[in-house]
Amino acid sequence: MKITIINGPNLNLLGIREKEIYGDTNFGDYFDLLQKEFPNIDLESFQSNSEGAIIDKIQEIGFTNDGIIINAGAYSHTSIAISDAIAAVSTPVVEVHISNVFSRERFRHHSYITKNCKGLICGFGLKSYKLAIHDFL
Amino acid sequence: MKITIINGPNLNLLGIREKEIYGDTNFGDYFDLLQKEFPNIDLESFQSNSEGAIIDKIQEIGFTNDGIIINAGAYSHTSIAISDAIAAVSTPVVEVHISNVFSRERFRHHSYITKNCKGLICGFGLKSYKLAIHDFL
Amino acid sequence: MKITIINGPNLNLLGIREKEIYGDTNFGDYFDLLQKEFPNIDLESFQSNSEGAIIDKIQEIGFTNDGIIINAGAYSHTSIAISDAIAAVSTPVVEVHISNVFSRERFRHHSYITKNCKGLICGFGLKSYKLAIHDFL
Amino acid sequence: MKITIINGPNLNLLGIREKEIYGDTNFGDYFDLLQKEFPNIDLESFQSNSEGAIIDKIQEIGFTNDGIIINAGAYSHTSIAISDAIAAVSTPVVEVHISNVFSRERFRHHSYITKNCKGLICGFGLKSYKLAIHDFL
Amino acid sequence: MKITIINGPNLNLLGIREKEIYGDTNFGDYFDLLQKEFPNIDLESFQSNSEGAIIDKIQEIGFTNDGIIINAGAYSHTSIAISDAIAAVSTPVVEVHISNVFSRERFRHHSYITKNCKGLICGFGLKSYKLAIHDFL
Amino acid sequence: MKITIINGPNLNLLGIREKEIYGDTNFGDYFDLLQKEFPNIDLESFQSNSEGAIIDKIQEIGFTNDGIIINAGAYSHTSIAISDAIAAVSTPVVEVHISNVFSRERFRHHSYITKNCKGLICGFGLKSYKLAIHDFL
Amino acid sequence: MKITIINGPNLNLLGIREKEIYGDTNFGDYFDLLQKEFPNIDLESFQSNSEGAIIDKIQEIGFTNDGIIINAGAYSHTSIAISDAIAAVSTPVVEVHISNVFSRERFRHHSYITKNCKGLICGFGLKSYKLAIHDFL
Amino acid sequence: MKITIINGPNLNLLGIREKEIYGDTNFGDYFDLLQKEFPNIDLESFQSNSEGAIIDKIQEIGFTNDGIIINAGAYSHTSIAISDAIAAVSTPVVEVHISNVFSRERFRHHSYITKNCKGLICGFGLKSYKLAIHDFL
Amino acid sequence: MKITIINGPNLNLLGIREKEIYGDTNFGDYFDLLQKEFPNIDLESFQSNSEGAIIDKIQEIGFTNDGIIINAGAYSHTSIAISDAIAAVSTPVVEVHISNVFSRERFRHHSYITKNCKGLICGFGLKSYKLAIHDFL
Amino acid sequence: MKITIINGPNLNLLGIREKEIYGDTNFGDYFDLLQKEFPNIDLESFQSNSEGAIIDKIQEIGFTNDGIIINAGAYSHTSIAISDAIAAVSTPVVEVHISNVFSRERFRHHSYITKNCKGLICGFGLKSYKLAIHDFL
Amino acid sequence: MKITIINGPNLNLLGIREKEIYGDTNFGDYFDLLQKEFPNIDLESFQSNSEGAIIDKIQEIGFTNDGIIINAGAYSHTSIAISDAIAAVSTPVVEVHISNVFSRERFRHHSYITKNCKGLICGFGLKSYKLAIHDFL
Amino acid sequence: MKITIINGPNLNLLGIREKEIYGDTNFGDYFDLLQKEFPNIDLESFQSNSEGAIIDKIQEIGFTNDGIIINAGAYSHTSIAISDAIAAVSTPVVEVHISNVFSRERFRHHSYITKNCKGLICGFGLKSYKLAIHDFL
Repeated sequence: MKITIINGPNLNLLGIREKEIYGDTNFGDYFDLLQKEFPNIDLESFQSNSEGAIIDKIQEIGFTNDGIIINAGAYSHTSIAISDAIAAVSTPVVEVHISNVFSRERFRHHSYITKNCKGLICGFGLKSYKLAIHDFL
Repeated sequence: MKITIINGPNLNLLGIREKEIYGDTNFGDYFDLLQKEFPNIDLESFQSNSEGAIIDKIQEIGFTNDGIIINAGAYSHTSIAISDAIAAVSTPVVEVHISNVFSRERFRHHSYITKNCKGLICGFGLKSYKLAIHDFL
Repeated sequence: MKITIINGPNLNLLGIREKEIYGDTNFGDYFDLLQKEFPNIDLESFQSNSEGAIIDKIQEIGFTNDGIIINAGAYSHTSIAISDAIAAVSTPVVEVHISNVFSRERFRHHSYITKNCKGLICGFGLKSYKLAIHDFL
Repeated sequence: MKITIINGPNLNLLGIREKEIYGDTNFGDYFDLLQKEFPNIDLESFQSNSEGAIIDKIQEIGFTNDGIIINAGAYSHTSIAISDAIAAVSTPVVEVHISNVFSRERFRHHSYITKNCKGLICGFGLKSYKLAIHDFL
Repeated sequence: MKITIINGPNLNLLGIREKEIYGDTNFGDYFDLLQKEFPNIDLESFQSNSEGAIIDKIQEIGFTNDGIIINAGAYSHTSIAISDAIAAVSTPVVEVHISNVFSRERFRHHSYITKNCKGLICGFGLKSYKLAIHDFL
Repeated sequence: MKITIINGPNLNLLGIREKEIYGDTNFGDYFDLLQKEFPNIDLESFQSNSEGAIIDKIQEIGFTNDGIIINAGAYSHTSIAISDAIAAVSTPVVEVHISNVFSRERFRHHSYITKNCKGLICGFGLKSYKLAIHDFL
Repeated sequence: MKITIINGPNLNLLGIREKEIYGDTNFGDYFDLLQKEFPNIDLESFQSNSEGAIIDKIQEIGFTNDGIIINAGAYSHTSIAISDAIAAVSTPVVEVHISNVFSRERFRHHSYITKNCKGLICGFGLKSYKLAIHDFL
Repeated sequence: MKITIINGPNLNLLGIREKEIYGDTNFGDYFDLLQKEFPNIDLESFQSNSEGAIIDKIQEIGFTNDGIIINAGAYSHTSIAISDAIAAVSTPVVEVHISNVFSRERFRHHSYITKNCKGLICGFGLKSYKLAIHDFL
Repeated sequence: MKITIINGPNLNLLGIREKEIYGDTNFGDYFDLLQKEFPNIDLESFQSNSEGAIIDKIQEIGFTNDGIIINAGAYSHTSIAISDAIAAVSTPVVEVHISNVFSRERFRHHSYITKNCKGLICGFGLKSYKLAIHDFL
Repeated sequence: MKITIINGPNLNLLGIREKEIYGDTNFGDYFDLLQKEFPNIDLESFQSNSEGAIIDKIQEIGFTNDGIIINAGAYSHTSIAISDAIAAVSTPVVEVHISNVFSRERFRHHSYITKNCKGLICGFGLKSYKLAIHDFL
Repeated sequence: MKITIINGPNLNLLGIREKEIYGDTNFGDYFDLLQKEFPNIDLESFQSNSEGAIIDKIQEIGFTNDGIIINAGAYSHTSIAISDAIAAVSTPVVEVHISNVFSRERFRHHSYITKNCKGLICGFGLKSYKLAIHDFL
Repeated sequence: MKITIINGPNLNLLGIREKEIYGDTNFGDYFDLLQKEFPNIDLESFQSNSEGAIIDKIQEIGFTNDGIIINAGAYSHTSIAISDAIAAVSTPVVEVHISNVFSRERFRHHSYITKNCKGLICGFGLKSYKLAIHDFL
């Protein structure tokens, strides 16, 4: 089983920026733990600050992967193009957010992406990614 | 560990009404499966069509339970009172929805409850409840 | 043929409150007249000030009755839960209002319920109920 | 007793256009049935695609008729002028719609006309006209 | 000097309908008084309930008249087409209303027509027409 | 003189929940102090988390009491039904809030209830109830 | 007959500022012409840049004058207090604007004042004042 | 092949009014050029300032023509009735505008008609009609 | 104890203007009664129609007074500057209104001032001032 | 004559994704047909999922090309930057869409780009590109 | 070179009120430092809590000064009259704010004044004034 | 002291495009002048049309630079991702715009970026960059 985690803009700063919101764990470290916890799943991690690069990636893996877990960060709220890419591919996509976006600024309450995903998991810190993997089990 | 699942209005009709949205499994049957899967957790199930009764239940268990999983159904979108109850108690609460509410009518996109919950899981069918339990593990 | 009339909050005060809007006839008296006018129909009358109790009633009779006539009063404008209950049952439901809600305050112009009902009859005083019965003839 | 049914734009296509919404009965045929069912009422039928012609008709009969039943079609949602004409005449006017306009596009949820009518009946197919006649009995 | 007064829908009912808003004078009688008061002006009066006929009239006289005084009634609030006609002709147009539209329903506060007219006079009863003529003196 | 204090949802948690907003006094203790301070008034206290039960209570006492003081809590912002009940009864009703709702979340700035009450007192902590009683003196 | 013209903020700059909108005539000069044209009317002119001073003036003359003509300038769009003052006095008030405010910025389309005035005259340049006087003849 | 061009209000003034927006060519002249360019197509031209007459025309030709090209002018933005007529007929309809309506006033950005047409062509001057014909080739 | 009552625009007309809303008592007379009822409080009364003068007064007494009771009248709905002044001073401020502003025009439902005051009392007629004083006891 | 077709995000999936909306033709195949049909035009095709790359391309060719045909896909609805680029270059740009965006989700009804283009062609399937080329002939 | 700094309401409290937002420096002290730093500029300082007085000042110096630096405080968000005064005078005006108004309450995000000023400088504390002076160098 | 100027989309066309808004100076030339004027500051200039590249740059220099001056151009109005990047880094960021964005189209009045910057300087032409540097002195 092949599952790719796609992280959007600024998520490469996890563990560095705004720790009171996002926690102080580096995503690379967390990813290694995840891979260990699910040894039978072929996990891949991809991060980019570029909307176009995220679309390229979704198109590249979206017809062969078993699953995609996407945290599009700020692009969740502004990118119809990423949402269209998710609708266009055949692989099921799960949206996650580390923080509870609904308890933050109003412009973070709307995600263009959710309606084209299978489901949404948010607010559980990095554990949100793990719960998303459980959906594919 | 004591976790209570609170289901709101019309969720007693699961498996009966609108099966194309909610599936055809009866919640009672699903609950039994859940309890078997997590034998070490003391699971409780509560359903009511009454906003007041749901608030009463949250207040009753919200200072002693280890967790609450709430699917407030239609009250998610209209009840500030349930949201206030969640904010008032000390037990962490996870909000779940069976369907992906963000791909349905616009008035289902806003939940008064989410901001006072730990997190939100929606769109995974009845599996949403199971993923919520995983958060408490 | 079994038809139930469900009246929502404050409609037990008909003939008592705001007579310039709702008229001065007691609903009980009107109901007796209706039953006499349609002797071949098994009419039932139910009133509650509780949103939950109205949902309970809809669920109870909504799979066996031949028709439901609902005047949800103020809950028409605020209850997605009652609307969901109407959508969930198989019995056809007709929405009625005594007054012409569209010539009153703006918040009475929108009803969550109408879209899930077969049709709407409003503005004819208590006669609205009688016209609704004619639909089932 | 003289009652005129006024039908607005495109209602001359009843039975021809969009049958899944409006049914396949021609209005002329239905009108003949209605007249037979209410032999003691002098029924008249008028249709026009022109907003001005509808206003002319309302003014012409609005001080002598016993009743007007109006299905202003699309003009319900855009014509303040027809609404003003209804307010100006002394004959009581009942608004009808064949379909349940509240379960269709959002712009069909608002009618400028309703507030100046005695009442509204919608969603019962062609039967909506018959129920309106019952109000005048 | 040739000035035409164009009256829109329902203004033929002046003196008949809603006298508490529009007064009880018939427009024909008032027009005769106006013509007597301004004997040197060639006054013309035109009324129609049809948006199209009003546009036809504006186009007909709008390149030769010295002035047009328009009370478009309800069409003021809904007709971009009449407003476009006013913008298209070379004759200056003055908008009048008998009542103070800004103290009435909210939908009467906006006129598509005003921005393409020379000016607006409203609220002075039938005298509004006379004040408009004074502008052309 | 008979005055009833009606408290809405979650107000039974006063002194327990969110003390930084609502203070740490239990309402029962405060009520005893109030009764002592106004020995000539027959004070009654009623609390419910149920919208329907609050309406039932208003109807029960609303034609005989000398006054009602209502803190409808979250229902202030969502319940047209409670507002209608207040409009329907003859007893004057005063709305109170413990906190200054206008310095909190935006959805707490609008109360459906206020317009049907005699007046509003908010922001004075539990003292708001006492000031309301002074209005009846 | 005593009529006072009240001019609001920046109208003392008439003939100086933005001549393409307001023309190049000084108000003092225009006022002298007006007084000569209506020798039987006791005309007074008052200008202030202060909202409070305008209210003071309205209160001072609003119970004894035969008429007030007000061009409240920018305060038309922001001052509920001036509007309340107009509603409070017994002298009839006519609102005028030099330019056609409805063909300018959107925020100039709404005037708090109009609904409490007898009528509105705008767009005729300085002649707007003269037309207003004609209303009092 | 039979194609009818329907032009709405004020388009009979082409070449006369507002030449900076609509150009200085008379539509009659342009139509002759079009017919010469497409000799194998039976082109018809129809213009009316009346919403009702446009609907009549659409109904008349909408079940037999091969195509309709409509420039509904200002009615594009206000007429649900014309839009309904287009939806009701079987002939495919193409919407055209001479100017780029999206670079003009905001109220010209929304067309009720577009969603029921096959497609939209706007901004190419009179050439917009020619491009529309190319769609039918 | 020093408490100042600040009254805003048009409140000097109390007892003169719109008696059906504000009653027929002159504020001066009422103030004398208040001072007699609370002989141990040093009451001061200040009224101005000028926003600036009200701010000046708040700044003058806002660091030394024990309390301020403000009825900012129409400025409540438009003045951020007065609200800022209240936030800037250290004396606690109570907002009062004579009428129930929430049952009047919509623009009176929002007050910029409330959020910076300790609390709000409205709808009790002149008694609102007295209740406000009780808060300081 | 040099004309470049710029395709935005996900348009590289034409013929693969959502065929019920976009058809089943691959853009490369269609482009070859277009080039054959217009042998005298030097056609170029460019596609990118990156907003920045599209801007780069517009800047690169926008001062030398004879025409640009742009289908910016989802970026039409979100990119002010692409719209600014179009406004900045001297080459005329025509906007096309394959589907009728006005009959799809509401967020696809607004394009930031249209106002800076010469015109818009949408709804004709891949033929939209061909019609756009006709404009340059 | 003559430059006047105009400070609006409550800015005379700088260094006294809300120091966490505005800092603890008195404006008089800061002004002296500024004058020393720019000895070749004739700096003037003016403060008023009155909208009218600020307009008077702008008119007085707005045709002779070399520059005006205005911090209109709360009037920035509510005063069209001050904005009109700035548009009316010939002296260039620079708007400054001490705090970053865009990170504060929503109603502080809109300034009526900015569009008529040369530019805006905000968020740099008292240094905002100094940067504004640099613009005039 | 190291300060980087980041310019967003289309700013590489400065001096080429829309000179009436942005002036006719090439940014490279202006940058050289700036560097000469502030010889003690290590100035760097970066421009990209790509949102992702701008975020990459902010992350690269945002923990070591002494200052960042950003003119994000059109991305100011649409990019939450750039705003998040600014919030994430520790270097203070000043937002500048060449034109007075508040006197242009409405969609340019809102910047997602401002609230996370230290301050905003706009409207002073290229001089805006220089004033921003002064803030760091």
